[in-house]
Amino acid sequence: MTLAVRYTAARTLDTAPAELFEPGPGEVLLAPAFVGICGTDLHIFHGDMDARVAAPTVLGHEMSGRVVAVGAGVEGWRPGDAVTVMPLRWDGTCPACVKGNRHVCQNLDFIGIDSPGAMQQRWTVPASTLVRLPGSLALERAALVEPTAVAVHDVGRARVKAGERVVVVGGGPVGILIALVARAAGAEVRVVEPSAHRRKLAEGLGLPSWDPAAGEVVEAVREWTGGAGADVAFEVSGAAGGVETAVEVLAVRGRLCLVAIHPRPREVNLHRFFWRELTLVGARLYDRGDFERAVELVAEGTVPAERLISSVVPLAEAAAAFEALEGGGDVMKILVDCAADTEGGTA
Amino acid sequence: MTLAVRYTAARTLDTAPAELFEPGPGEVLLAPAFVGICGTDLHIFHGDMDARVAAPTVLGHEMSGRVVAVGAGVEGWRPGDAVTVMPLRWDGTCPACVKGNRHVCQNLDFIGIDSPGAMQQRWTVPASTLVRLPGSLALERAALVEPTAVAVHDVGRARVKAGERVVVVGGGPVGILIALVARAAGAEVRVVEPSAHRRKLAEGLGLPSWDPAAGEVVEAVREWTGGAGADVAFEVSGAAGGVETAVEVLAVRGRLCLVAIHPRPREVNLHRFFWRELTLVGARLYDRGDFERAVELVAEGTVPAERLISSVVPLAEAAAAFEALEGGGDVMKILVDCAADTEGGTA
Repeated sequence: MTLAVRYTAARTLDTAPAELFEPGPGEVLLAPAFVGICGTDLHIFHGDMDARVAAPTVLGHEMSGRVVAVGAGVEGWRPGDAVTVMPLRWDGTCPACVKGNRHVCQNLDFIGIDSPGAMQQRWTVPASTLVRLPGSLALERAALVEPTAVAVHDVGRARVKAGERVVVVGGGPVGILIALVARAAGAEVRVVEPSAHRRKLAEGLGLPSWDPAAGEVVEAVREWTGGAGADVAFEVSGAAGGVETAVEVLAVRGRLCLVAIHPRPREVNLHRFFWRELTLVGARLYDRGDFERAVELVAEGTVPAERLISSVVPLAEAAAAFEALEGGGDVMKILVDCAADTEGGTA
Repeated sequence: MTLAVRYTAARTLDTAPAELFEPGPGEVLLAPAFVGICGTDLHIFHGDMDARVAAPTVLGHEMSGRVVAVGAGVEGWRPGDAVTVMPLRWDGTCPACVKGNRHVCQNLDFIGIDSPGAMQQRWTVPASTLVRLPGSLALERAALVEPTAVAVHDVGRARVKAGERVVVVGGGPVGILIALVARAAGAEVRVVEPSAHRRKLAEGLGLPSWDPAAGEVVEAVREWTGGAGADVAFEVSGAAGGVETAVEVLAVRGRLCLVAIHPRPREVNLHRFFWRELTLVGARLYDRGDFERAVELVAEGTVPAERLISSVVPLAEAAAAFEALEGGGDVMKILVDCAADTEGGTA
């Protein structure tokens, strides 16, 4: 058995023993070290994804850890290797896969949502999902490789170029990572975020930030861009007002990259898309290239992952951490330490 | 004076004398032959664009005609030359122009909306707007060059490639032209259109068409594409349901080209954009390359423009033609014949 953080029903998590799967052929048994709590995990926690998630299930897909054992036929990996996991399993045969878009396979198994995730002491995954971590990279920081890969993918989807002006609407972990990756691509970046805590964190990373509550973001962008508008906007807030802002700030032929999950349809100013010949691109996941680039960015410090980590909690305190994140307080990324002493702890 | 079709107030047109502007330096005096009535003209007629249109104004921007006289400094044009007009005047200095997107200049003068249009006996325009027509091309057919240029631009914005499957939502004149241009690019095309008359016309052009009222378009596309969905959809209906259909039919990484005018925000399934990594591109006008390609397509018959012309009416009957189009009856494109005998006629 392996102690795990399990989603059992809407707004209910426990830390309880879960089944330990021995690694079969082509599989690897991992010891997760740190696992980040992600916005999608919060959606699951809220019960928003009950149609998809088969409770009880083990959460977690932003992880770092080490190989414990390898199954038959696995080559290139040894016990002790530091790894992260690209948590995607595609069928390879659907129309999307055949066209080369395996990461958005029409029957994608997203590990940690559709099958058991990383918030446990031991975790078995296909060896094909492993991504090697350099020895120099602390495992705590490496837990942010997965959201950084999201950001790399998003910046790529928006085709951000050096010298462009970019507005990131939503300054949570993914928004900040997008801002950092866009800046690394040579863009000038501004962040729009209502939380003073998060704005301060962004500013500390050299990312000028605006409070949307001040109601002057569109005018501020106009001034900043000499009346042109921004070349690129990222909608990472998930809010109706975020969509509106991201559309309004764009220049003629500007690109809006949609990152956030909007479970329900949103009103969109389509006339503006027509009038300014705007582009909207959806961005969901990542491919291996994005992941490998993310490892580089975190390892070299271009993405100072440690600055985004608000706290690290043991497995037994995961439920409380979910509550804290949901409360929307002064918090950014919380990691679950899967190796911490959890004796006697079931939340 | 020149007899002209003038918009005077919401739902009110007259055919009345308008000021004749002599061609100044760099300008050309034209004798419009045929002028198409466009969806935008109908929006003006409805009064939807009163904030922009300074009544009374002369309508019309889809035209063919001949040069009558040239102003000082105009080279390359002689009386009698057959022409159409790309009705755009940009300022050349705004941020969009500086970036090379003059056709969506932030201060664009769209001739026929923002300044007097072609539905009159004589019309003065900048020589820079003229596009030469081959002598072999009948002027009646040439009146459809402008909407064909829209279609060329739209198909280009959507990057339609040979072998792709394309759904055009809305089978009015622009929808049919898009379908024809996409087919000329090598795509397989289906049209979605509620009017039986328009579906029959599309079928007659070899464009299989579906009735959205049957409620099975999404399923039909699924079958047609082997479960993948369409590579490209064009939203040309202007209806809320059209947006929904265009989003729902798309394959993973599909592209939606937004052509229609949606004056008010629409509910859009953004989750689908996220989930399938879809792209939305707005398309508004055209550039000179689009126009020149459109002349070729109409002249060579790839776009059989004559098949889209429902009727040709004299200037004095333009108001009745607007009413007929608004009624949504069995009608496609109506041309106004600016040279027809209009003696005694003011509608």
